[in-house]
Amino acid sequence: MKVVKVGDAIAFKSEKMNKVSLFDTDRFFCDVYCLEPGQTQKVHAHEGSDKIYYILEGSARITIGAEEKEVHAGEMTMAPSGDEHGVVNHTSDKTTMLVFMAPKPQ
Amino acid sequence: MKVVKVGDAIAFKSEKMNKVSLFDTDRFFCDVYCLEPGQTQKVHAHEGSDKIYYILEGSARITIGAEEKEVHAGEMTMAPSGDEHGVVNHTSDKTTMLVFMAPKPQ
Repeated sequence: MKVVKVGDAIAFKSEKMNKVSLFDTDRFFCDVYCLEPGQTQKVHAHEGSDKIYYILEGSARITIGAEEKEVHAGEMTMAPSGDEHGVVNHTSDKTTMLVFMAPKPQ
Repeated sequence: MKVVKVGDAIAFKSEKMNKVSLFDTDRFFCDVYCLEPGQTQKVHAHEGSDKIYYILEGSARITIGAEEKEVHAGEMTMAPSGDEHGVVNHTSDKTTMLVFMAPKPQ
């Protein structure tokens, strides 16, 4: 029985957003994304997989399909299969978020 | 683009643990479980689905397979397909946790 202290897994990279894997099974993965100010995950899409974002600390602008919203600590949103989605830390503070995706993209 | 403020979704029931659905797709669900002191989710199993628990507030004793551990706010654990799992709020404070399961049980 693996118990992960999420705060201990958080680590930033100066060159780009850092993804840290917390759990990875045949059925889904859960990562923590760590974004320094200005860091991004480019808009992209996965056919057949849905993805949840839950903001742990800070804020981000999240794009899903044709919409973009500012999402704050304690808030959650979801990118459905096939919809383009991406993330920008537009703030001057660090931002961390849990990301769940199922099923894992092929 | 649905954005959920998780804190606003939290609601307790005096008679039993309350599950509040945050997102529910063809591929997974995400709930917040709200447990008053002493409330439980009985040990059970789902063949073919994995489940993640992430503690938002408080602590719980979580059973997965033959193990039981105390899991605290900011910690995450995972019950793999087929393993028995259950939750007890053994404390005198309220406990809330995010729960992700994929795929949805049939």
